[in-house]
Amino acid sequence: MEISELGEFGLIQRLTKELKIENSTTLKGVGDDCAVLSPTGNTQTLVTTDLLMEGIHFDLMYVPLKHLGYKAVMVNLSDIYAMNGTPRQITVSLAISKKFTVEDIEELYSGMKLACEKHHVDIIGGDTTSSLTGLAISITALGEALPQDIVYRNGAKETDLICVSGNLGASYMGLQLLEREKIVYNNQKRELQEKIGKAKAKGNDKELSALNSQLSTIATPDFSGYEYLLERQLKPEARRDITEALAKANIHPTSMMDISDGLSSELMHICTQSHVGCRVYEDRIPLDYQTAAMAEELNMNVTTCALNGGEDYELLFTVPLSQNDAVNKLEDVKVIGYITKESLGKVLISRDGSEFELKAQGWNPLQ
Amino acid sequence: MEISELGEFGLIQRLTKELKIENSTTLKGVGDDCAVLSPTGNTQTLVTTDLLMEGIHFDLMYVPLKHLGYKAVMVNLSDIYAMNGTPRQITVSLAISKKFTVEDIEELYSGMKLACEKHHVDIIGGDTTSSLTGLAISITALGEALPQDIVYRNGAKETDLICVSGNLGASYMGLQLLEREKIVYNNQKRELQEKIGKAKAKGNDKELSALNSQLSTIATPDFSGYEYLLERQLKPEARRDITEALAKANIHPTSMMDISDGLSSELMHICTQSHVGCRVYEDRIPLDYQTAAMAEELNMNVTTCALNGGEDYELLFTVPLSQNDAVNKLEDVKVIGYITKESLGKVLISRDGSEFELKAQGWNPLQ
Repeated sequence: MEISELGEFGLIQRLTKELKIENSTTLKGVGDDCAVLSPTGNTQTLVTTDLLMEGIHFDLMYVPLKHLGYKAVMVNLSDIYAMNGTPRQITVSLAISKKFTVEDIEELYSGMKLACEKHHVDIIGGDTTSSLTGLAISITALGEALPQDIVYRNGAKETDLICVSGNLGASYMGLQLLEREKIVYNNQKRELQEKIGKAKAKGNDKELSALNSQLSTIATPDFSGYEYLLERQLKPEARRDITEALAKANIHPTSMMDISDGLSSELMHICTQSHVGCRVYEDRIPLDYQTAAMAEELNMNVTTCALNGGEDYELLFTVPLSQNDAVNKLEDVKVIGYITKESLGKVLISRDGSEFELKAQGWNPLQ
Repeated sequence: MEISELGEFGLIQRLTKELKIENSTTLKGVGDDCAVLSPTGNTQTLVTTDLLMEGIHFDLMYVPLKHLGYKAVMVNLSDIYAMNGTPRQITVSLAISKKFTVEDIEELYSGMKLACEKHHVDIIGGDTTSSLTGLAISITALGEALPQDIVYRNGAKETDLICVSGNLGASYMGLQLLEREKIVYNNQKRELQEKIGKAKAKGNDKELSALNSQLSTIATPDFSGYEYLLERQLKPEARRDITEALAKANIHPTSMMDISDGLSSELMHICTQSHVGCRVYEDRIPLDYQTAAMAEELNMNVTTCALNGGEDYELLFTVPLSQNDAVNKLEDVKVIGYITKESLGKVLISRDGSEFELKAQGWNPLQ
């Protein structure tokens, strides 16, 4: 169905008609000039926002709309967890070009709803409008936390341990894989189209029909063995489990942030804002087997991918040295180095013991 | 300066370096995974968001970037006032295409800052990224209000008076004027370019140079006499003064919203959500002299413009009949009709006493 048949209010009604409110702090969701929230007694409110643009942040040739919706929400929730907070509400704004149908937008929205359900988050409003080209998604997430629980980027202290959750570089490898297969697909398609053009010119109907049937069945790429990489790229999960595990183990990080632009870049932020240096060990950086295998296949340095790939949505945090034992007991958390005096710089110690200065070479959307 | 020279963090640093925090409820603004707010004791939090796309919501051929920034903020603050709340914070997300320089974005941002200063609002965060085509602006505004002060759309009661602030249709007339002058300008330019093409072909250097100098000085349109219309379109003001006047006069509206899509459309929302009907008098709809003059010049029906033009950012509200005297004493507020039983429908009574059913023909961004 064409979106213009429904209009703005019709589309919003259709997308939001089954929204349920899960949080007692959400007093009024969609349907007025503003949403109305009633923050719980002593908590503070956390606010984060992201703007995703088609062609810059996602390629609809290989990103299913439902996954896109899911990821768009997750990247915001990840920021709330990175403050050690609990996400409660999001607003969703969409700008949609004419190429999208009502069903497309419902698909996108269903991914958003799924992510919200999983994290008990309410969709409380937004804006729906058109775009001359492509899709724009703007999400703002609100969360809450007790003042004493909030973890900023600026609290890392000398001798603190540097920890990361999960493993790094997998999402970036997934992206490389998708990009490679896109090129293969486009090349095959172009070659066939050229042959079709020639067959047409020659009037060779038999060849033409054979080529056309080939065109409609260009092999879908075989991703077997690399499913994990695709999942990390297409369907990342915000690490609520880690903040819950930290709370349970009574560990209060001195600084924390999520890894969206790459470990190097995020380490720089923590060091700069905390006025400290760091020493990180290459052989301690957690990698998945598939990440290493794919890096080898693509002839890339896997450490570079893990340091600068980005879109990991893992948590990077520091804890006092005294919590070494506690942190080592946590599942899926690894100590990768420690915090030093600012004057000692930000250093990566390679497998052979050489020292390199860490540089933020993460993804820069404006370069 | 090219934006790529600065990169994302450089640009954000440059834009936000002089931001001052005005509200005690803003604990942490730009610079971490989230902003952190501490809502005041008994208040509830109001949240609203808007996504503005180049080519859909604004035309940079005649909208100065500073005005655009100012307006983008105002339309969000207007939603907070429409709930009878006080705006406190905004987040600003921008997607920028390569055609913009650092100075352009500073200009845009300066308009945003001006709007924020005027209303004592803090810029607490956002996202800055690139776009393949044009500019996208996504703003989320947060405000607060005591629970008993908040005014929803669904509280209008039979016999309530319907009131509007300011006057209607002026912004729409301003847009018509700008669009007309754009066409005139483009036609003049095209004609000259055709002549230049011919002169080139003939090798007539003297004529060519004369035409080129004409091209560089195509008359800027003379808007004198219509300044007010342009101001309403390019630099709308959110009506904090009206909510303040209502509070001072001890008037608590039963329903309220701001007029962004046109009076008709907004009346429909209030009637539908309050399960009531309305009778509105054409001769009571407030119009500015310039709006009427421009409508006549363009051969348009001024009432239609006032009902459906939109972008007025005036407040539409209802008050109990018992507050007739109080509301009539308010400056810049006019009673335009009253609320009826739902079964009586939504009716406009024209100057000659005929009755028409009100229809929402306001601006629909998805048609």
